[in-house]
Amino acid sequence: MESSLTLATAFQDAEYIIGGHGSRKIKVLQEAFMHVDGELASDHYGNGAVIDSFQQQMADVLGKEAAVFFPSGTMAQQIALRIWCDHQGLKRVAYHPLAHLEIHEEDGLKELHQIETILLADKDRLIRLEDVQGLDQEIACLLLELPQREIGGQLPSYEELETISAYCRERGIKLHLDGARLFEITPYYQKTPAEICSLFDSVYISFYKGIGGIAGAILAGDTDVMEESKVWKRRHGGDLIGLYPYILSSQYYYNERIGKMQLYYEQAQELAALLNACHGIRTLPEVPVSNMFHVHIALAASEVEPLLVQMTQHYGIGITSYLNKTSGNSCAFELSMGDRYEHIPQDKLRAALTWLNEEMQKQSI
Amino acid sequence: MESSLTLATAFQDAEYIIGGHGSRKIKVLQEAFMHVDGELASDHYGNGAVIDSFQQQMADVLGKEAAVFFPSGTMAQQIALRIWCDHQGLKRVAYHPLAHLEIHEEDGLKELHQIETILLADKDRLIRLEDVQGLDQEIACLLLELPQREIGGQLPSYEELETISAYCRERGIKLHLDGARLFEITPYYQKTPAEICSLFDSVYISFYKGIGGIAGAILAGDTDVMEESKVWKRRHGGDLIGLYPYILSSQYYYNERIGKMQLYYEQAQELAALLNACHGIRTLPEVPVSNMFHVHIALAASEVEPLLVQMTQHYGIGITSYLNKTSGNSCAFELSMGDRYEHIPQDKLRAALTWLNEEMQKQSI
Repeated sequence: MESSLTLATAFQDAEYIIGGHGSRKIKVLQEAFMHVDGELASDHYGNGAVIDSFQQQMADVLGKEAAVFFPSGTMAQQIALRIWCDHQGLKRVAYHPLAHLEIHEEDGLKELHQIETILLADKDRLIRLEDVQGLDQEIACLLLELPQREIGGQLPSYEELETISAYCRERGIKLHLDGARLFEITPYYQKTPAEICSLFDSVYISFYKGIGGIAGAILAGDTDVMEESKVWKRRHGGDLIGLYPYILSSQYYYNERIGKMQLYYEQAQELAALLNACHGIRTLPEVPVSNMFHVHIALAASEVEPLLVQMTQHYGIGITSYLNKTSGNSCAFELSMGDRYEHIPQDKLRAALTWLNEEMQKQSI
Repeated sequence: MESSLTLATAFQDAEYIIGGHGSRKIKVLQEAFMHVDGELASDHYGNGAVIDSFQQQMADVLGKEAAVFFPSGTMAQQIALRIWCDHQGLKRVAYHPLAHLEIHEEDGLKELHQIETILLADKDRLIRLEDVQGLDQEIACLLLELPQREIGGQLPSYEELETISAYCRERGIKLHLDGARLFEITPYYQKTPAEICSLFDSVYISFYKGIGGIAGAILAGDTDVMEESKVWKRRHGGDLIGLYPYILSSQYYYNERIGKMQLYYEQAQELAALLNACHGIRTLPEVPVSNMFHVHIALAASEVEPLLVQMTQHYGIGITSYLNKTSGNSCAFELSMGDRYEHIPQDKLRAALTWLNEEMQKQSI
């Protein structure tokens, strides 16, 4: 190993970083508030012009009757599922084995709401119509995550989505969308957010993925359901006296970046093609369907790390700060395209990946 | 009635307003972030220098092993009570009938945590030692709110507090402090926050009361309990990717105002004396024990409102935007002293209250 630098340090100091919009720094907030009128009144426990106007804007964008701003998606989604369970008188829902609720929320849905969960599909593939048809227990709600982040951001065909939606409506199963990355899939589906959301009874979207805000989420659906969600928001401790630091920054970065989703999607496709041309490297999906994908490398993390450190040092290009071990002698990381990519000189990027390809070929894989 | 202006409108347009620090406007955030280094990194899901340093600062101030920043007191307190119930294997707690958890949280404690509550004392008085001694059911935790906001911000004597604390420790009852206004009571008790907190097993404090921040709360206690609270924070949806808008503004306004609690307390005493000299007006407590008190007027709200509108228009002094009907032909409102009071010309204030006294004397009460 030429250098004792860790991958995380090399990445942090890289001249260019491939993914994301930029570091999560305080200036993200400062920029969003620089031109806001200081005399504007705070929202006040869920009321006031600041929150009302953004909620209405998002309800319109998503084609739903109403929308409610939440501090987090964790809170918004648990609440959506709880409401559907209460409506159906049945505390059971189904989702993917790698759903955010299952792996990142310390079992809040079970611990706080006593909701039983059925894990549909295998970990490494999307939920299909046949999985839903094959359910042998009744459920109040099915949650679909589009794109399925933990498997690289995969998507079903739009036709399959329509078929699943129709099946659920027929059976009285409520359909909830984990749309943390909803805006990022509109270029692939060639549909508006509202068109996609029309297949679902409730929808959550996030403002710190492709939008690049600080934090915050919107839950959207019918007015009566959204009114119920406000009661649960209070119960969860999310009905803050002022949520405007998240609301106004979400609105600012939404306006900044909503028009760039096609660009991020195309950049993801371009970069994935470059990576797939490298020996021992493949992306998942092979052709990205959003701004994100996973990069799988058929070599142990301990062997890949020094290569990526060298690449960063010699070419100034940081591609990842970490490597996750995957099954077999291999590793992987996630890439999400954002504002940074367009600032990378293409010749440097291509030279770096050409070098990486040569180094990978020297490894006995 | 001389004017058709509502009290809320007259108050909003008043040249001087008696209570509070100022309107809750966006400039509160802008001021707090004006001099923060934009290159400072965001906290990241509860980790990082920004959150660690403030949590440590507050743990030190409160004399506890550890502290955890929460988006809200609603979330922090439910979680504290849940942890104590889990530790004791008993899902029952006791608090005042007008505790925040009982009247402002949509029963989150019961709906999310299935915790049974015993309401101690009558609505219109503080919890006493004998109430705790008289409990005929076991409880895991007793919550005391200091000062008791909904009855004007009353306080027990420090000796009674010590006796209740000793009694709880003897019986294995955990004692939790709702210290939303903890800093505001230190001048009356002549104790440090840490001295008061030493009587309690867990403590919650707020940053948008006397401190005047945007939102946010700290829960403090033993390290193991605080580690547990982080798991519940994640479950509640409060473990945001970045809480820094609240953390840094809380820290800023804490530093700005922590030295002014004695001043606010003295101002409350001064103003309460002026009000108690008015015919038909009395404050609760008669002599304030913090920066807050309630103002009770022995006249129907419909008759008081035009008087206060006139007072605001003639003297430029706004005292309240609302009047709550109370039992009998009377009404009341709350006052909390903050930065605004010192900007009011004393002659104007005294002239306004002299006029109000005269008008009240003309009423047949």
